[in-house]
Amino acid sequence: MADEQAQRRGPGRPRQEHVTRAVLDAVVDLVAESGMGALTMDAVAARAGVSKPAMYRRWSTKQDLVIAAAESRIGPLEVPDMGDFRAELRAVLMARMEAYRQPGIDRLLAGVIGASAEVGAVREAFSAYSARVMSETRHVLERGVVRGDVRPDVQAADAATLVAAAMVFRMVAEQRLPDEALVESVVDLIGRAIGAPSL
Amino acid sequence: MADEQAQRRGPGRPRQEHVTRAVLDAVVDLVAESGMGALTMDAVAARAGVSKPAMYRRWSTKQDLVIAAAESRIGPLEVPDMGDFRAELRAVLMARMEAYRQPGIDRLLAGVIGASAEVGAVREAFSAYSARVMSETRHVLERGVVRGDVRPDVQAADAATLVAAAMVFRMVAEQRLPDEALVESVVDLIGRAIGAPSL
Repeated sequence: MADEQAQRRGPGRPRQEHVTRAVLDAVVDLVAESGMGALTMDAVAARAGVSKPAMYRRWSTKQDLVIAAAESRIGPLEVPDMGDFRAELRAVLMARMEAYRQPGIDRLLAGVIGASAEVGAVREAFSAYSARVMSETRHVLERGVVRGDVRPDVQAADAATLVAAAMVFRMVAEQRLPDEALVESVVDLIGRAIGAPSL
Repeated sequence: MADEQAQRRGPGRPRQEHVTRAVLDAVVDLVAESGMGALTMDAVAARAGVSKPAMYRRWSTKQDLVIAAAESRIGPLEVPDMGDFRAELRAVLMARMEAYRQPGIDRLLAGVIGASAEVGAVREAFSAYSARVMSETRHVLERGVVRGDVRPDVQAADAATLVAAAMVFRMVAEQRLPDEALVESVVDLIGRAIGAPSL
């Protein structure tokens, strides 16, 4: 499909997109199969069929590379105004849940967390990624306050942490894939926690 | 202090406790200083001043060792009946928060998560540890249902995930140390989410 796009759009940028996609797919596949221990720049280059210089131009460290791979699967998200913050939170969480259930994503996320604690890792690189992942939840909460169905005194940053944390913890610490029942529980619990009292 | 105990109690078991403590302290120190990448059985044995066979008798893999080190700092917990599930949850979370703020614990937890996703890791070893860490929260929720201040229809497993997840996520994904303000937010949000309506 990337090749078709390249043909339609001509050379140049599409070729770069093709390289990016091939490299990030290779990272996801390698980590899914063999864990972070097997993830070397050489192995990724060989699997993706790209040169190491082409990789280093985009991602100078292994940490950059795994964060980019995670973001290719779990990236920014946009949910339209549905007139109800619970429905919007459910939409965010269902999209995440489906992404988390893809093969190898649990291992990739655990690997990103582990890599961010290694010497030489840039802490801000991962916290900035987390902020991008959480931004739509922040947006849903703020829209709810304006709309009036979210309590105006809610600590939005802490509530967003609670929303983002449950499925990730279920996956990496409890080692179970998050499912629709967990999404419904989180929507119900957060809904009661932050919903404005009905008039 | 371990030596004093050994003298008071005589040889045998106290000597074993001394070895255990020395090894787990060495693991925490090494990971805090140099990350999981620096954690080898040789480095731990040298730092702790114990023989490798003595280590392998207790922990046969690096994963066992880091889980034991984490559990030496973040272990099972018991909170007495305070007549109020919010106060009890606050006690659990304050104890965890203080443990999480010890030097190097953020890195150790991230390392445990990363190690559990490596090839050869035993998934159940980490999920069993998580279950031990979460067990007192489960207990507080169940006691609240019996007492009547927690809604009887609460999905206790999912609520416990939400309680446990927030501080860990704040630490390993947002890369900020959890603080008392986060504890209060979580107690407030979970309190509203699961509290029984007052009569």
